[in-house]
This record gives sequence, C-alpha cells and structure tokens, in this order.
Amino acid sequence: MGGALDPAVATGRNLVREALADLAAGTRVVVGVSGGADSLALAAVTAFVADRGSLDLSAVVVDHGLQHGSDEVAARAVQQLDGLGVRAVVRRVDVGRVGGPEAAARTARREVLAASGADAVLLAHTLDDQAETVLLGLGRGSGPRSIAGMAAIDGLWRRPFLPLRRAGTEQICRAHGLTWWTDPHNSDPAFRRSRVRGEVMPLLEDVLGRGVAEALARTADQVRADGHLLDELAAQVADPLDVATLAALPPALRSRVLRRVALAAGAVGAELSSTHLAELDRLVTDWHGQQRIELPGRVSVTRVRTSGGTSLTFAATPVGG
Amino acid sequence: MGGALDPAVATGRNLVREALADLAAGTRVVVGVSGGADSLALAAVTAFVADRGSLDLSAVVVDHGLQHGSDEVAARAVQQLDGLGVRAVVRRVDVGRVGGPEAAARTARREVLAASGADAVLLAHTLDDQAETVLLGLGRGSGPRSIAGMAAIDGLWRRPFLPLRRAGTEQICRAHGLTWWTDPHNSDPAFRRSRVRGEVMPLLEDVLGRGVAEALARTADQVRADGHLLDELAAQVADPLDVATLAALPPALRSRVLRRVALAAGAVGAELSSTHLAELDRLVTDWHGQQRIELPGRVSVTRVRTSGGTSLTFAATPVGG
Repeated sequence: MGGALDPAVATGRNLVREALADLAAGTRVVVGVSGGADSLALAAVTAFVADRGSLDLSAVVVDHGLQHGSDEVAARAVQQLDGLGVRAVVRRVDVGRVGGPEAAARTARREVLAASGADAVLLAHTLDDQAETVLLGLGRGSGPRSIAGMAAIDGLWRRPFLPLRRAGTEQICRAHGLTWWTDPHNSDPAFRRSRVRGEVMPLLEDVLGRGVAEALARTADQVRADGHLLDELAAQVADPLDVATLAALPPALRSRVLRRVALAAGAVGAELSSTHLAELDRLVTDWHGQQRIELPGRVSVTRVRTSGGTSLTFAATPVGG
Repeated sequence: MGGALDPAVATGRNLVREALADLAAGTRVVVGVSGGADSLALAAVTAFVADRGSLDLSAVVVDHGLQHGSDEVAARAVQQLDGLGVRAVVRRVDVGRVGGPEAAARTARREVLAASGADAVLLAHTLDDQAETVLLGLGRGSGPRSIAGMAAIDGLWRRPFLPLRRAGTEQICRAHGLTWWTDPHNSDPAFRRSRVRGEVMPLLEDVLGRGVAEALARTADQVRADGHLLDELAAQVADPLDVATLAALPPALRSRVLRRVALAAGAVGAELSSTHLAELDRLVTDWHGQQRIELPGRVSVTRVRTSGGTSLTFAATPVGG
C-alpha cells in the first residue's frame, strides 16, 4: 500500500467510518466473511478503521459446506485476514432447504453470525447486491415492501458498502494485495440472482442507459423511507379491529394496519402476499357475506357483529382444527 | 358475435362499466383511438356500455402524422368505429420534440383529446403498458414517484383497461371482427419502450417467472397509494420553510414538502431529480455553509437567518439574472 492512498480504499474507509461512528471504543464488531472480494475488502478497510477507533474487531468466516473444497476456501480466507491483522474463526453451517437454497444459506449464515455475540455485525452487500435484490423483489410483486431492498443499519446488522459498486471491492482487494475467491454459484444460471446479475442487469443498462443499478438503489432507499413512516403511522391507529375505523383509513394505511394485526395474530410475514391482504381488505371495504379468510400460519379472520359495532377477529387455528 | 359471449369481451365490458359507473346519463365520453388493438377494443366494449347507460359516446382518432400513410390508418379506424356505431372525428396533431419523441407525441395527443370538451376521456392503456412504464421509471431512478405508473382515474382521464393484458384487447377485436393496425414503432428498437416490451419483459418473465407484468402493476398501485397519502400529509405541514420544522420531519415527508415548495416556486417537476432533492435536503440536515442551490426552472434556494429563526427562501431567477 506504499504511495498515494487508492481512491477505492479511501471511499471504503469513509463508508465504514461513517457506519461505525456511533460505536464506543472496545465495542465488539464482527465482519462476516465468505472469502469473496466484497467481504475481504470490507475486512481490510474495517481493520484500519477499527484500529483507529479501538474497536474489538474479529471476523467470522462462514463455510456453507455446499461445494467440494469449501474448507480450503475458508482456510485461505483466514490466511488473508491474518495478513490484515484480523483474527478469524471458521464456522461451518448446516444449510437447510426452507425457502430455497439462497434463503436457506442466508438463514444459516445469519444464525452463526448472530451467535458470535458481537454488538455489530458487518455485512459486505454492495450497491450491485441492492439493485439485484430490488429486481428480485419486483418479481414477487408484494408491493413496496418487496422492493425496499436492504437497510444500511438494521439492528445488529450493518452494511457499510451499500453505496459501493462491486468493482470497487475488487479494487480494494487489489490495493491490499488480497486474492479473493469467486463463488461459481454467482455465475450459475440455476440461481435466479445469478441470472439477474449476468443477464437482466446488463440488458437493463443497455436499454435504459447507464446508472440503472444506482437508480434501483436510490428508489429502494426512498421506498424504504416511505414504508418506515407509513408503518409507524399504522402502528398508531387506535382500535385497529373496528371495521368502521378501518374503512375510514386511507388504503395505504389500512393495508399496513391489517398486515400488522395479522402478524401479531401469528400470520407468517414471508408468506403473506398482496392477494391475502387484498382479500382482507375486501372483508372491510367490499363485504358481501364472505366467510372466514385463511392466512398462512393458520390464522383465520372473520367479520363479527358485536354490540359495539362490527369488527374483525383474527384467530390462530389449532393444529388439527 | 353470435353465440356465447367471448370471455375477454365480458371482462372488458365489466371493466368499462366499473370505470364509468359514476357518470350520469347524457355525460359526454370520448375514447382516444389510434387504430391499434387496444383502443379499438376499448371503443368496442365502451359502445356497448355507453348504449346501456345512455352516455354520449364518441371517438377521437388521433393522427400523429409521423408515418407515411398515417391518414389511411386513421380513415380505416373511422370505418371500424362506424361499424361499431361510434361516431368519430380524426384529429391530426403536430408532434413537437420536447422531452423526446414519445413524450412529445403524448403531449400532442393529450392536448387534442382534452380539447374535445368531453367530461371523461378513456385511454386504452393495458397492464402491459403499466408494467413497461414502471420499468422505464426504474431507469430514471427518481424514487417512488417514477415507478408509480399510471392511475386508473386521473381527473379527465380514465384507463379502464389497466387490469387487462394486451392479448385480451386483441381477443376483443377478434370477437368483434375488427382489424387493427400494428404500429411499427412498437417493435422498433430505436424506441426504449419497444425494447422494454420486446426484450426486457420476456427476459424478466424467463428469469423471475410468469406474472412479472402483474407483479409490476401491483407494486405500482401500492406505491401510488403510498405516495398519495404521503403527498397529502406533506401538504398539511405548517410553516414549510422553517428549517427547524423541516429538520424535525421524517425524511419521507421532508422530501415531499421540499418538492412541493419547489414546484410552487416554479421549479419544473419533470426535471426535478433525486439529486436536486438530496441537495435541498442537505441545506436543511447537513448544512456546512453551502451557497444557493439552483433548481430547473430558474429557481434558486438559499438558507437565510431571520429574527424568527432560520428558513429557506425559494426565488425565481429573472431571465438574464
């Protein structure tokens, strides 16, 4: 790293410095590392920032055990981290099958990272990951929530590299003399995300012009901010089960109140679709004698008339019921 | 049309019936017709609905004069409309160049349709048009506003076919024995929208699975509802130029208040980008001595300290100033 500071390194350091600015000296920070360019670059710039800020930095190298030789990939990552002065442990995870291979790998990874006991866990998602996430969400079509992308800070999790392009992380690795691992899954067309990365994004750039990834990320940021405020407003609605109260709400609030009540009753958020919410909404705004509605998570909703008016009842269906 | 009613025709009639349900007998309704399948199908089902509801229906065939033989296309459309019992006039428009060929054609078309003096003008946009509009908006990246798509009712304009696929309009035409014109622009790769239609949508369907157009339309509906409510809340903010008031607002409201004030001061909405709004926001939340900010439409914004506190001033710059 002799000579002038590489601009990508400078950018990376600034991003991490801002992302960790609220942490006191001695705070335990963990970087999740796969061995790819993104996470090695994050570890490299965080090592510098943590040293200046006296943070207690370590890395968890996650070995998903999905490919032959994944233990060697992990061992090489530990070596690279050692060269950066970052102490590292390898955690082998058992990837299940729930929600597809990508979701299952994410769940397993998150569990092991959360178990590290750190006060903050840094994830290396870049602007490219954010853009891909938005496009994948568009395909699900469950509304703004599905295109809100990932937040820069979300409880334990922090993503300092969200404003950075993927190419910037490779540049940071080169500047530090790090050799990274390229996950063959990333270009395997069997994975939806790989095709978004390798086929959809290049076509969108060609058709819509340069800057599509940035545009997608910007839209996600604003949709997320809008959703955050609307969720807060929805949380303030008093008597959220009363049909007259619900009917008087603007649609954008009503859908969020209904979603909130459904989740509180045990409905499964990840499986609650726009179609379910539209059905629920019709119980309020377009009722013509519909019977109960069933939501994923064995929650059933009925409209009942009481002495105080008409309201919705959300009830968990007993197993076998 | 002997025998059983074609399902696409039944769907089309229901959509138009709902879209016009609030109009009293005798109301003047105009359908905008290009000669393509979408607008001929709309005219066909509207003729039926208008007859039952005693609406005063006519059609305006818009000849953009952009292609050789466009007058013949218009004449054939009039013939088809005549067969449906819909009286029609041809209006030749002068397409300018402002905002690109597509935007200029839309502006010219809207002017001539608005000049018809109708109480409601029906436009034949379909679910496919909506999906394409959302994707084109994503490329602009000016946030939720750019992916909110088209509203089913927007003042004078009504779009009954927004829930209908384009193929459904062709089916309606076939059921009525109508022959439609296929605009060669629709498959001309020189037009961004044509490439979205012919290349991006098929790839997205292949990668993300069937139902992408529906998912995009559903997301647009919800983003539009969210934006509508947030715009209303932003309109209620008292003393919107006071920096302390602005700083205390949630970001999703602040950006809308700033946009509203900028537009009121003469800024040009179509040219007001996320970047402009982010700069404005920094005048409030991250001020470190920035000078005036210039917005499209010759509006300049400065931060000024007065006896009552600090506020923003939006001023139109005189021409030559």
